[in-house]
Amino acid sequence: MGEFDLLARVRERLSPPGPRVVIGSGDDAAVTVPGGATATSVDAAVDGVHFRRDQASLSQIGAKALAAALSDLAAMGAEPGEAYVVLGVPADLDEDGCLELVDGLEEIASATGTTLAGGDVTRAPALTLAVTVVGHAQEPDQLVGRGGGSPGDVLVLTGEIGGAAAGLFLLEHPGSDSPDADRRAALIARQLEPRPRLELGKALAAEGATAMIDLSDGLAGDAAHLALASGTGARIDAGALPVAAGVAEVATAAGRDPLELAASGGEDYELLAALPTGRLDAALAVAATAGARLTPIGELVAGEGVEIRRPDGTPVRAAGFDQLG
Amino acid sequence: MGEFDLLARVRERLSPPGPRVVIGSGDDAAVTVPGGATATSVDAAVDGVHFRRDQASLSQIGAKALAAALSDLAAMGAEPGEAYVVLGVPADLDEDGCLELVDGLEEIASATGTTLAGGDVTRAPALTLAVTVVGHAQEPDQLVGRGGGSPGDVLVLTGEIGGAAAGLFLLEHPGSDSPDADRRAALIARQLEPRPRLELGKALAAEGATAMIDLSDGLAGDAAHLALASGTGARIDAGALPVAAGVAEVATAAGRDPLELAASGGEDYELLAALPTGRLDAALAVAATAGARLTPIGELVAGEGVEIRRPDGTPVRAAGFDQLG
Repeated sequence: MGEFDLLARVRERLSPPGPRVVIGSGDDAAVTVPGGATATSVDAAVDGVHFRRDQASLSQIGAKALAAALSDLAAMGAEPGEAYVVLGVPADLDEDGCLELVDGLEEIASATGTTLAGGDVTRAPALTLAVTVVGHAQEPDQLVGRGGGSPGDVLVLTGEIGGAAAGLFLLEHPGSDSPDADRRAALIARQLEPRPRLELGKALAAEGATAMIDLSDGLAGDAAHLALASGTGARIDAGALPVAAGVAEVATAAGRDPLELAASGGEDYELLAALPTGRLDAALAVAATAGARLTPIGELVAGEGVEIRRPDGTPVRAAGFDQLG
Repeated sequence: MGEFDLLARVRERLSPPGPRVVIGSGDDAAVTVPGGATATSVDAAVDGVHFRRDQASLSQIGAKALAAALSDLAAMGAEPGEAYVVLGVPADLDEDGCLELVDGLEEIASATGTTLAGGDVTRAPALTLAVTVVGHAQEPDQLVGRGGGSPGDVLVLTGEIGGAAAGLFLLEHPGSDSPDADRRAALIARQLEPRPRLELGKALAAEGATAMIDLSDGLAGDAAHLALASGTGARIDAGALPVAAGVAEVATAAGRDPLELAASGGEDYELLAALPTGRLDAALAVAATAGARLTPIGELVAGEGVEIRRPDGTPVRAAGFDQLG
């Protein structure tokens, strides 16, 4: 593979750089004029670990890698700015395949206003993407970490959960005929084509979120990260969880409890935020205006650990980092 | 491997974050207060492609990965700020091995004033490092790209070249007894322990460098990148090249012409800069004051392509991306 030829072909496919980018891809480094504060996150995706090339198109793999990285910026309430991509290319991936990956990256970049401002291409034993994303805010206080929550804050969750894990089960058990075909396709799309909740992240930050995290590991695990960083515990009402349509059927087929699946399954890339109770109504109104689902699911409490209880009081045994399959 | 336990142990080993870092490693994203302009670059290092674990210690591998990434910031004249590291860990690398890698990263981070502000750890089939570095300047004009050179600008080169390629040859031919042991060790150190020319990069930028690039691919190839980006050609006087001590002996042992080796060999991580002729004396004086070698080696010319000629007028046939070995 001619690294420099490939990079030239890659650059042809990129949208024009955003207004912050003074020098884009092709120099020793990209030069940008940042906001008063930046949020920066890195995220890796490796074939056989984070995806399987026989389950996802190259374009989907590229798109998901960038979407997952941007989800961390959503969880800070940052405005997305630039992305930098390291592509590790195995021997059986040709230049056209690399460009298909780039098309997936570019699809998410355009949709979110992110500039692909630089990268590096190398040979590697397995397809590997390492994505760095930089988001901006006017000042550091506008960005929301994990650690600012207090006992009494209400926990709100965007969208629906369990879909990505159910979709992964369907990919790994392709003979399933439950739920119906449309729902199966929707669940698989939740696994292969996640979208970062950037607008809701900014809205929740503006509405006074004290702590926020995106659900990459799963609700139980990520709630534990947020609570630990905030020095609190968390109590979650399993009956309130917004479980995606079709998850119950998949859980039954997998011999799993639907709520356990929804609370354990990773990669939904929804946002979990802590809000002072006085800010809840305003946040719900903003989400409703945006046509987005936002659900109060519990609260931060004094102490430590995460409890997820059903209406009958029994606990949901959600493993923090469990994957269905 | 417990990813979260490992990350906690990693964070214990890091120096306190620099003044720009508001939230460091451990949240969804790092939060920084950048300068008025940032330079950002990504660089990958993969076992079997960029290094071999039987030729370098894990600490050296970590240190070189960060040094190589920072070299791109040196080539912009940027002040180093933050680094973000994706670590792809193969099955045969244990947690202590990962921490040894981190020690190498931290060694270069401390030496250069860089904060390791975030990262990601994943399983991978081969040891893989993807390093993102962010450097700062007060404004974009202080950063030097590759494309600002003009015909007539003098080309200056920091340090000495050929050492890293000669060191690689010695690593791959361990029976060599020429040059002497001290020089062999010095050449091998040039290959395994490069140091980014950050201070000289800033000094050359301040002295009016119009274009600058670091030598990762080798002088011939990187001069071609600079000339192409500047819309010029380049003429280099091979007799003026500062060839590292011992390179001539290694080239002879390898059956190669020493000047071809010096002009083709990659990974010296020296800087090649274009300067208006009126700024040359001041730049040489600054380098001399810093105790650093800076050598005028040629000039940018109208036209295109890079010519490297010996004192007798014959060309040095330097492949752009050739590696000795």
